[in-house]
Amino acid sequence: MERPQPQRPASGPGESAPYTARLLIDCADRPGIVAAVSGFLFEQGANIVSSNQYSSDRIGGRFYLRTEFFLESLSAGAGVGVGVDEVLGERERFERRFDDEVVARFEMEWQIRYQGERRRLAILVSRHDHCLVDLLWRMKRGELDADVVAVVSNHHDLAGEVEAAGVPFHHVPVEQGAKEKAERRMIELLAGKVDLVVLARYMQVLSGEFLEQLGAPVINIHHSFLPAFAGADPYRRAREHGVKLIGATAHYVTEELDGGPIIEQDVARVDHRHPVSELEGIGRDIERLVLWRAVSLHLEDRVIADAGRTIVF
Amino acid sequence: MERPQPQRPASGPGESAPYTARLLIDCADRPGIVAAVSGFLFEQGANIVSSNQYSSDRIGGRFYLRTEFFLESLSAGAGVGVGVDEVLGERERFERRFDDEVVARFEMEWQIRYQGERRRLAILVSRHDHCLVDLLWRMKRGELDADVVAVVSNHHDLAGEVEAAGVPFHHVPVEQGAKEKAERRMIELLAGKVDLVVLARYMQVLSGEFLEQLGAPVINIHHSFLPAFAGADPYRRAREHGVKLIGATAHYVTEELDGGPIIEQDVARVDHRHPVSELEGIGRDIERLVLWRAVSLHLEDRVIADAGRTIVF
Amino acid sequence: MERPQPQRPASGPGESAPYTARLLIDCADRPGIVAAVSGFLFEQGANIVSSNQYSSDRIGGRFYLRTEFFLESLSAGAGVGVGVDEVLGERERFERRFDDEVVARFEMEWQIRYQGERRRLAILVSRHDHCLVDLLWRMKRGELDADVVAVVSNHHDLAGEVEAAGVPFHHVPVEQGAKEKAERRMIELLAGKVDLVVLARYMQVLSGEFLEQLGAPVINIHHSFLPAFAGADPYRRAREHGVKLIGATAHYVTEELDGGPIIEQDVARVDHRHPVSELEGIGRDIERLVLWRAVSLHLEDRVIADAGRTIVF
Amino acid sequence: MERPQPQRPASGPGESAPYTARLLIDCADRPGIVAAVSGFLFEQGANIVSSNQYSSDRIGGRFYLRTEFFLESLSAGAGVGVGVDEVLGERERFERRFDDEVVARFEMEWQIRYQGERRRLAILVSRHDHCLVDLLWRMKRGELDADVVAVVSNHHDLAGEVEAAGVPFHHVPVEQGAKEKAERRMIELLAGKVDLVVLARYMQVLSGEFLEQLGAPVINIHHSFLPAFAGADPYRRAREHGVKLIGATAHYVTEELDGGPIIEQDVARVDHRHPVSELEGIGRDIERLVLWRAVSLHLEDRVIADAGRTIVF
Repeated sequence: MERPQPQRPASGPGESAPYTARLLIDCADRPGIVAAVSGFLFEQGANIVSSNQYSSDRIGGRFYLRTEFFLESLSAGAGVGVGVDEVLGERERFERRFDDEVVARFEMEWQIRYQGERRRLAILVSRHDHCLVDLLWRMKRGELDADVVAVVSNHHDLAGEVEAAGVPFHHVPVEQGAKEKAERRMIELLAGKVDLVVLARYMQVLSGEFLEQLGAPVINIHHSFLPAFAGADPYRRAREHGVKLIGATAHYVTEELDGGPIIEQDVARVDHRHPVSELEGIGRDIERLVLWRAVSLHLEDRVIADAGRTIVF
Repeated sequence: MERPQPQRPASGPGESAPYTARLLIDCADRPGIVAAVSGFLFEQGANIVSSNQYSSDRIGGRFYLRTEFFLESLSAGAGVGVGVDEVLGERERFERRFDDEVVARFEMEWQIRYQGERRRLAILVSRHDHCLVDLLWRMKRGELDADVVAVVSNHHDLAGEVEAAGVPFHHVPVEQGAKEKAERRMIELLAGKVDLVVLARYMQVLSGEFLEQLGAPVINIHHSFLPAFAGADPYRRAREHGVKLIGATAHYVTEELDGGPIIEQDVARVDHRHPVSELEGIGRDIERLVLWRAVSLHLEDRVIADAGRTIVF
Repeated sequence: MERPQPQRPASGPGESAPYTARLLIDCADRPGIVAAVSGFLFEQGANIVSSNQYSSDRIGGRFYLRTEFFLESLSAGAGVGVGVDEVLGERERFERRFDDEVVARFEMEWQIRYQGERRRLAILVSRHDHCLVDLLWRMKRGELDADVVAVVSNHHDLAGEVEAAGVPFHHVPVEQGAKEKAERRMIELLAGKVDLVVLARYMQVLSGEFLEQLGAPVINIHHSFLPAFAGADPYRRAREHGVKLIGATAHYVTEELDGGPIIEQDVARVDHRHPVSELEGIGRDIERLVLWRAVSLHLEDRVIADAGRTIVF
Repeated sequence: MERPQPQRPASGPGESAPYTARLLIDCADRPGIVAAVSGFLFEQGANIVSSNQYSSDRIGGRFYLRTEFFLESLSAGAGVGVGVDEVLGERERFERRFDDEVVARFEMEWQIRYQGERRRLAILVSRHDHCLVDLLWRMKRGELDADVVAVVSNHHDLAGEVEAAGVPFHHVPVEQGAKEKAERRMIELLAGKVDLVVLARYMQVLSGEFLEQLGAPVINIHHSFLPAFAGADPYRRAREHGVKLIGATAHYVTEELDGGPIIEQDVARVDHRHPVSELEGIGRDIERLVLWRAVSLHLEDRVIADAGRTIVF
């Protein structure tokens, strides 16, 4: 896990602070990790608000920890007369101490995210509007803990929706045999400028090079219950196969088509009377919900990818 | 659909008769089918108790009908002083008239099953007991509308369970390279003697020849959400794939491994903490329930296989 | 069931016509109903596209039938050179014949709805936007088979959303002790002008008088799994009660608070970690979906209320 | 939470030991609890295998912790030449140290349960066999981590099932107006001799006095989605109410009828066609599964009752 760039904390005094920061750790499993981390937090005066852990194997496994803690001195708007710079200084000292006293000892990968740090999210979409509309609506309500900084589409259809929501819309067509050009354009638009990319029914396969240059995680919604019906036209194939449940799958994107680590899945019951068009309608309601759950789990730092699978805390 | 052999009706006078018979029809779709069938039934004095229909396509499709009707004169134990032979004679006349007046006109495939006709069911099983135990328990309670006439296993493990339930147990081992011999033995035991075979976690693949010689439908329970994880060891593969739901699928058996028409499916939610052994435990509860639903749907004549899929009324 | 007012059919020649009309019937159950109806339809040259029936009791019960049929001469845009008036004339003759030949004989309640007849829908809402936004989005996509002719709210909050969708917004405040006045105003706005009213989280109880004067069915979404947690603040009460599933219920509105016939329900799993605010968030996704399913079932004429319950075909 | 009586550990050397013991703690929430507990465990040489925690409120709440840890010296069959008495001595010392160094400081309630300690379970049942048969089957398979030491029934019907499973069956009739006598007899049979009582469709209300004298937790399965349809005949009432889902609820028994803390619930979809008898059939499959999940969660020490609700780790 990479560490995000430091950001200046939001400093509104009226902001509720159920937690100050989330600490995510993974390392080779061995005794004493929880004791070291919780001991360190206690010594700094922090109170643990929630904590989840997982070991991939009893012996020789990897250990994963997600902890939310409250610590006044690191909180944005910490107190009357406490400036932003002071808080940033406190955070720096806290992180350095943690690095020295705990991280080094266990060779940990770690990241910390402070409450109020906003991440930048871009949405890629083709023509289907349901996932996009749902995300924009949640953004507007304040449910989405991120700023949607761009929507990119290979079609013009959804420009109106996006602009009405006050989000910049970029049309990046993918011409026959010129996918590379489109990906270059998207890298210009997005690389280094977003923390997460969401494919809200973006119907183009992204190359490994693109994913690498992008440098941010990408979440896709696939309209089937993977690994069944990977690839094109899953509802038609579900109909032909006569399955009694259809589903949707949100997963991190890797080079393998519809093959990256699964974050969330769900299904709905169907029967022989449903033509493909009705499967699509039922499916839309699953897709937007499964994608939303995956995106919000990701933004709450609850998802860790491990060897092709995810741990979801 | 083949017509079952005539059977003598049960004649207990205290028997409740919510319906007299189920009529199943399929033919090329065209106007007038429902009018012809319901008109015929009305003229015979029958009251339609329930009715379901389906057309596979608006134009040029196939039409399917399942009707339950009540008709005193065809009912077992029809009235005081009405003998079994009289009822059988009435049924024969009814069927002949239907053949002449309706079937011929629409070139229908059809079958009729009278209330109280018992079908003969055989169960094939290997070592896992959960599906078998569940079916035997339902048999004992009277929930299973069929007589379990034989359990066949390639192992000895479950002989005690089966014999305690009063059902004949046959051990038919499948030796390395001698599957043909085992299938021949099973054909001796079952062909012509059963109306349905249920594979309650029978871990051997059955040959196309066996299925043909058996001459009765075969229902299998597969321990995955098909078409995902067809073949061996689905729970281990589900774990490796990191799916968030596991499932089970009951289907008619064809030559294609785990590929026959699906009757019923269901799923349960799992997460990264479940080792394969726990997936198997969660799966057992889905498997026995999905298999039971499929078997009871079949025995209620609610399932029609059509072009690799099923219509479930 | 009341018969809807005749409407002029849509006459666009390119309109697809999977069915011409839906016929809904209910009457005291007795032999011959299906034969009479299907015989009549056949004689008129109609082809039955789908058909569902139900008897409330084996003996002395009520019989319900829903049939979709295709009949060229009654179809809007029936053929080249066939005018709207001719089609309307054909429909009138068809209905009169049906009345004479079938309805009278069985003392049926019945209604017919022709494909393309648009119903008028009004939405009542207070402050929560999720159900409203979802319905407006479906209207825009063409999924909602009705025209939203008005949104009425006792608050101003959602005026922008509604007007952006091109739907008239009416603010009808409900002042302390002056509910009667508000209801009078709504009757002016709606009575005789709508075919269905949807309460999309409208937080005022409607009086029996209002319902009577309105003269159109009203569908409400209640944010609990009824009959549990009828009345105010169901998520807080669900939390206090420690239930492991929360739900939503769409039902027809009667004078009894949250007590009318249930059309659709669904649930989602929750646990001890979810504060009320998160239950509300999870609940919103169930509510909008359950309400949508109920509204679309109603608009497809699939719901029949019978003795405090519904039959959903 | 009471502390269970010490038991001699199982000492088979081949026993797998994924964990040594489970530690359950609850106390007023304040900083340093996790640090103290995990620090203590680390100092003793333990490795934390899994850990869950929950605070009922951010401020002034109660803190709950469940930890599974591995510690060779406390493990049954700890090593070659290590006797049972030595292990018991180690456990005593460990517990005393924990009491001195951690418990006192935080005024904790706590309990520890060592792997391999068997609890004693009694089942109360009336006439319905489905929950009982399921539990006995799981006992036989080794899935139930407890010894079923007695089945008590107010009817004779299920004696055969119970005795065939090798479990003592006690018939304790409840005569009209003589419930007290029956409860006295059950107290003689059970008080001090069982660690858990499971009501597997026991159709008698137990008095508060009985519960107190019993001195062990009691889990009941109620055949509805509580709080809907508490009390008698829930499936009939569900049918009359026209609900679209039926459910089952497993809960701890308190004096309030069907009102104790809920452990687990689940539902299944039904519709207008299901008579009460079919609701009962569908319900049986939910009931036995929900009861089993609740019992196994309890036996894994995953359920903590708190102010009328449960925390399920």
